[in-house]
Amino acid sequence: MVRVLGLDPGLRFCGWGVIESDGNRLRHLGDGVVATVDSDAMAVRLRCLHDGLAALLAEWAPDEAAVEHTYMNKNPGAAIKLGMARGVVLLAPALTGIPVAEYQAMEVKRAVVGTGHADKIQVQDMVRRLLPGAVLKRADAADALAVAICHAHHRSSRLMLTQGYTPA
Amino acid sequence: MVRVLGLDPGLRFCGWGVIESDGNRLRHLGDGVVATVDSDAMAVRLRCLHDGLAALLAEWAPDEAAVEHTYMNKNPGAAIKLGMARGVVLLAPALTGIPVAEYQAMEVKRAVVGTGHADKIQVQDMVRRLLPGAVLKRADAADALAVAICHAHHRSSRLMLTQGYTPA
Repeated sequence: MVRVLGLDPGLRFCGWGVIESDGNRLRHLGDGVVATVDSDAMAVRLRCLHDGLAALLAEWAPDEAAVEHTYMNKNPGAAIKLGMARGVVLLAPALTGIPVAEYQAMEVKRAVVGTGHADKIQVQDMVRRLLPGAVLKRADAADALAVAICHAHHRSSRLMLTQGYTPA
Repeated sequence: MVRVLGLDPGLRFCGWGVIESDGNRLRHLGDGVVATVDSDAMAVRLRCLHDGLAALLAEWAPDEAAVEHTYMNKNPGAAIKLGMARGVVLLAPALTGIPVAEYQAMEVKRAVVGTGHADKIQVQDMVRRLLPGAVLKRADAADALAVAICHAHHRSSRLMLTQGYTPA
């Protein structure tokens, strides 16, 4: 049995979802978003995001984390902003010493829906079917649960890549 | 008298520099880079960067931090990578509760050299003149000291913008 925290990085809304995986069985434990305020200074927003994630990690005590690697087809300004959020999202679980795996959006869709070209609605429908009890107030939370499901399928092979580092 | 930590974000090399400012007088205390290993997983590199910055913050106990906002004229992939480093660099001082100010590269050059279009060599020369004893093993450290100098000049007006947040 392993408890997985899935995360969908974003500066304004960062989706999160916690599941338990026991062989082929999946169980939904919780999901939601960590939100930050647009008008705050960047360092303040990043600290809010970090504090929200640290609280989730303390509350749910996941064994492993999985983060979706959003494909960015926008301008460098937007990419650097998403990058800042993504940096904090990858860091928070790494600071607690648990392994952190990354997945491309297409891998996540393939694992959950069966095709890498599924749309948001298909992903949400499958997340609801696979995880009865999921709240999914926002699409970001569905994406976070989807990456957690993807990780539950792929974890044994993927974690080898990220376990090179022993926290001081 | 105020102690300022200047930071020039980068994933491979993050420049840092510590100065003390007493009215118009500046004093160099230390500079260098925090390096991470290219071949490590991203979460591992971000944790290395964070741990390096946390150690510097503990060692030097700065009162305020200043971070250079590097202009990115590259592709979204490169921007998101720099953004991840930048997110961790802004977060580390924010987690200790000190104010964090951000400056555009042109503001830094204007404050140090007198013109926003100065080149790297001019910036390094002025940093050496203004801060006798600076080591500057890498250009990243010179850029970090330059943003610390810039902040020493502008801090009273800039800090108002970043003090909206009281750490929990």
